[in-house]
Amino acid sequence: MKFTINQSDLYQAINIVQKAVSRKETLPILSGIYLETNKNKGLHLMANNLELGIEYWIDAEVEDECAIVLPANNLISLVRELPSENIVFNIDMDSFQAGIKCLESEFIIKGFDPEEFPSLPSLETSNFMKINGKILKSMIEKVKFSISNNQTQPALTGTLFEINKESMALVATNTYRLACYKVKNKTNLENKHSFIIPGETISNLNSLLTGDEDLEMIFNKNYAKFKFNDIILISRLIEGQFPNYEQVIPDKYNTSIIADKIKLNNSAKRASLIANVVNLNIVDESLIIESTESESGHAHEKVDIKIDGPEQNINIDANYLLDVIKVMDEEEINIKLIDSINPLAVKIKNGNEDYTYLIMPVRPNS
Amino acid sequence: MKFTINQSDLYQAINIVQKAVSRKETLPILSGIYLETNKNKGLHLMANNLELGIEYWIDAEVEDECAIVLPANNLISLVRELPSENIVFNIDMDSFQAGIKCLESEFIIKGFDPEEFPSLPSLETSNFMKINGKILKSMIEKVKFSISNNQTQPALTGTLFEINKESMALVATNTYRLACYKVKNKTNLENKHSFIIPGETISNLNSLLTGDEDLEMIFNKNYAKFKFNDIILISRLIEGQFPNYEQVIPDKYNTSIIADKIKLNNSAKRASLIANVVNLNIVDESLIIESTESESGHAHEKVDIKIDGPEQNINIDANYLLDVIKVMDEEEINIKLIDSINPLAVKIKNGNEDYTYLIMPVRPNS
Repeated sequence: MKFTINQSDLYQAINIVQKAVSRKETLPILSGIYLETNKNKGLHLMANNLELGIEYWIDAEVEDECAIVLPANNLISLVRELPSENIVFNIDMDSFQAGIKCLESEFIIKGFDPEEFPSLPSLETSNFMKINGKILKSMIEKVKFSISNNQTQPALTGTLFEINKESMALVATNTYRLACYKVKNKTNLENKHSFIIPGETISNLNSLLTGDEDLEMIFNKNYAKFKFNDIILISRLIEGQFPNYEQVIPDKYNTSIIADKIKLNNSAKRASLIANVVNLNIVDESLIIESTESESGHAHEKVDIKIDGPEQNINIDANYLLDVIKVMDEEEINIKLIDSINPLAVKIKNGNEDYTYLIMPVRPNS
Repeated sequence: MKFTINQSDLYQAINIVQKAVSRKETLPILSGIYLETNKNKGLHLMANNLELGIEYWIDAEVEDECAIVLPANNLISLVRELPSENIVFNIDMDSFQAGIKCLESEFIIKGFDPEEFPSLPSLETSNFMKINGKILKSMIEKVKFSISNNQTQPALTGTLFEINKESMALVATNTYRLACYKVKNKTNLENKHSFIIPGETISNLNSLLTGDEDLEMIFNKNYAKFKFNDIILISRLIEGQFPNYEQVIPDKYNTSIIADKIKLNNSAKRASLIANVVNLNIVDESLIIESTESESGHAHEKVDIKIDGPEQNINIDANYLLDVIKVMDEEEINIKLIDSINPLAVKIKNGNEDYTYLIMPVRPNS
């Protein structure tokens, strides 16, 4: 029961699937990586924490077909420390042990019965669409920081995917802010589909995407599956109702300003050191940022802006503004306002893409 | 009450003294940095957590002489975010507030009464010696990782300085391992002096040393003071008895081996992944490193060595060996042994410097 594989290939493969390894200690086998060899297809790796599963295939020289589950921590740390040479695995399928040999290093790692490893769902009778990896990665990066980590509202701990024949939208909110990214994207889907993908899946998917791939996305009522670059990622969906985000996004604003992104960032960051909640005063081609009440002192910052519309005055959490500035590619930032009690919006609109990021105002006495 | 200072000068100065800022919340003023201006000498900065104090002087354009204590966290984060321009400080000595202005940014930070800040001890009737910074930094780096963090044995949470007319030694131990670095160093001291400097002081001193300076060390029964590069660092000493280290260091060994540092490091590191305690078997120009009993598997590593003396077999904690390898500059490592029940020694001897690092063996049934 023997196979040979190059150290750096194996290390790369383990690093991909380990994102789905369970960090909980309740079911020890789920903290392992499933390895299976096939004479034609090489080595198949899989991890599955029951929320998220990742599969990957790599080339290997397979002498006999076999399978084993090895503890991910031990396997990762050992393979990382081995020299960049061929590694020979000798699997004992009676005792579930792997002999690992590389130059003068010989190891035995105790594992688990591969028969007991849960297989990934097959997603029959599912919907199917293609997505460009660069667009998906950009959408994820501009919405994922708005995902809530409040476990009492499970639907908000994920990202809403809303897809129809003509367009796709990703939405995330913690109710104090909301990010919505819509793109025009022709699909073969006849009806409108909505589902919520967990925040952890979104982060892992984002870190696996290079931006150069074309993805297939397959989904049904319970699961979504992404196929790209020899990787298969399957995630359970979050049950529950996502808030009606379209109702929250204003369709008209009174004032629009343009500010230099870096200057706005630096001023907002300094003001936030004194108090999280800052007052934005838009007056005379200037944005004045001042700290609201604080025990530690007072901040007063001035940023030159272009302004179109009436003067404005609003209190917001400066960190929510800093978060969106971090993911903007543009040199200038466009902020739109209605008044002091309606959400402030950061907008990007190019061609087929429409991004809206809302920050709810902080009422003076709240 | 006004002074002007360059942002990058001030940021560097704050970063030096902040190492002595208190992290405890018991006395709020100690979490601040004391600032005092002098028309001739510029700006004087000081922090003092009652164990460790650091003073530093920098140039500043002083309009009036004044003093204030400002919260270190606020000051550091604000100065870090300000542009690299002149900063104007306006101190209100009645309300203990600092106005801070830099281009379009204006801040007020609330501070503390400078009269209440504890001054540093003066160290009258003390002993005095000069030390080369490069030698001291090298000594500290080779002993500090052996300092104990077990607070029940306070003397072991520091480093012993032992100085006489001809030599200086630094020693640290947690009783399972011991590092001792001795250098020949002519001093003006007539008698032998021993004192224990806290581990935290040692770390901070090390991070402030560039290796290019000459230091003055001044010490008495309770304090040690280091002067270098416009920095003054004063540390309380640890009371208590340091173990008699000379009694522990063997004066004769039976076997001496030489191994390639990188190969030994990689093999010991891999073996330690299976079990912390490893068996070293020195036989036939080879060092065999094997994991001792472990639930997770077995490791077997082989390193080619040069050997002088009889074969040896000893159990040690692999992490103690890995720690010393990290701080060795040499390409080869010299290990000396007596037998399986006496300490294993890693030795460096060049010219005036004599370094001994002992690892106590782990008994098979302990």
